[in-house]
Amino acid sequence: MKIGVIGATGRTGQEIVKEAISRGHEVTAIVRSKDKAASLFGNQVTIIKQGALTLTHDDLSEFDEVVDAFASPQAYQHLDLASRLISAFRNDDTTNLFFILGASSLKQADGTMMLDTILKDNAGQPWIQTPVQQVHEYNYLQWIDNVNWTAISPQATFTPGPKTTYRIGKDEILLNKAGKSEVSTENLASALLDEIEQPKHLRQRFTVVDD
Amino acid sequence: MKIGVIGATGRTGQEIVKEAISRGHEVTAIVRSKDKAASLFGNQVTIIKQGALTLTHDDLSEFDEVVDAFASPQAYQHLDLASRLISAFRNDDTTNLFFILGASSLKQADGTMMLDTILKDNAGQPWIQTPVQQVHEYNYLQWIDNVNWTAISPQATFTPGPKTTYRIGKDEILLNKAGKSEVSTENLASALLDEIEQPKHLRQRFTVVDD
Repeated sequence: MKIGVIGATGRTGQEIVKEAISRGHEVTAIVRSKDKAASLFGNQVTIIKQGALTLTHDDLSEFDEVVDAFASPQAYQHLDLASRLISAFRNDDTTNLFFILGASSLKQADGTMMLDTILKDNAGQPWIQTPVQQVHEYNYLQWIDNVNWTAISPQATFTPGPKTTYRIGKDEILLNKAGKSEVSTENLASALLDEIEQPKHLRQRFTVVDD
Repeated sequence: MKIGVIGATGRTGQEIVKEAISRGHEVTAIVRSKDKAASLFGNQVTIIKQGALTLTHDDLSEFDEVVDAFASPQAYQHLDLASRLISAFRNDDTTNLFFILGASSLKQADGTMMLDTILKDNAGQPWIQTPVQQVHEYNYLQWIDNVNWTAISPQATFTPGPKTTYRIGKDEILLNKAGKSEVSTENLASALLDEIEQPKHLRQRFTVVDD
């Protein structure tokens, strides 16, 4: 499949690109720095240098799948890119948009949202805007019924790590065998590519945990 | 002030343009049809012919106030235009964005939202998407803290009518002296221009009823 990855040189984007290449997909890295992408992926991908927030339907319509792995310290840009992509693909069912959300919109064992705990424990921290905006992004996506989209959330701990095996869930925090809410970037990339190849969550968010 | 009105030839847009002209503002009509705008407003306004969903910061940054009076049978475009304008004006506090919402997000006497009643009484009607999307639009706006925006909702009945006197409120359905939730387009235009000239609702929605 033709897969475009926005933010391909980021921590998560890199693993998605590598996993997609290893499965024989035709991958395009959409990035701010051509040099970084070239040094990471060599000639295994096509590289497009373009700011995420300037992308249009024309730039992206060639792809079967557009993965939004964009990350920005201006947290509101996560919401802005999501709405830009959704608006561009209204009533176009030839491309699926795949959004990588945070874990903050997942439900905890007591039924509250992880964001509630984050806000309580970290009020005033500058990074708090990222989980806040990612919850907005998920709320926004749930309004969208005429675009093909899918979203994936990692777990509370989301760190570089090897591909092992994984389990998926829907809206709840999940625990690995050690009782931790944890998923590796490689397992998330693997779950994301499995979903791209065999879609089961059209217009839904799902989550993934290390097995 | 320099005021740009998107959807200036629509039912509400027309009244806003006329009210703004009568108060001596420098008005630009941003429209799909130059002819219709010229026949309505003569040479009293500058006319820009451009699709609302292609507008950029460069197109609009000259204005002190951008009024979104856009209406579309594709109801999701209300949300798309709002997110497009917000994204364009992030961290720009030289322009205020003024959104005209529906009444569907107002609260009824029993505390429920007007949309709840609309959905119950009109399930399956094709026009139901308009109040649904306007509620999304208001929910979306409430997430936005780094753009100057204001929103106004009419009442349940919103029809052409003369400028008389009006009262304003915040989130509740209001009643006129006859006990009706009703506001004329001219009174809404008058309330909107009063707010532009003396802002009291930065990053808030307010509502207006015939007195």
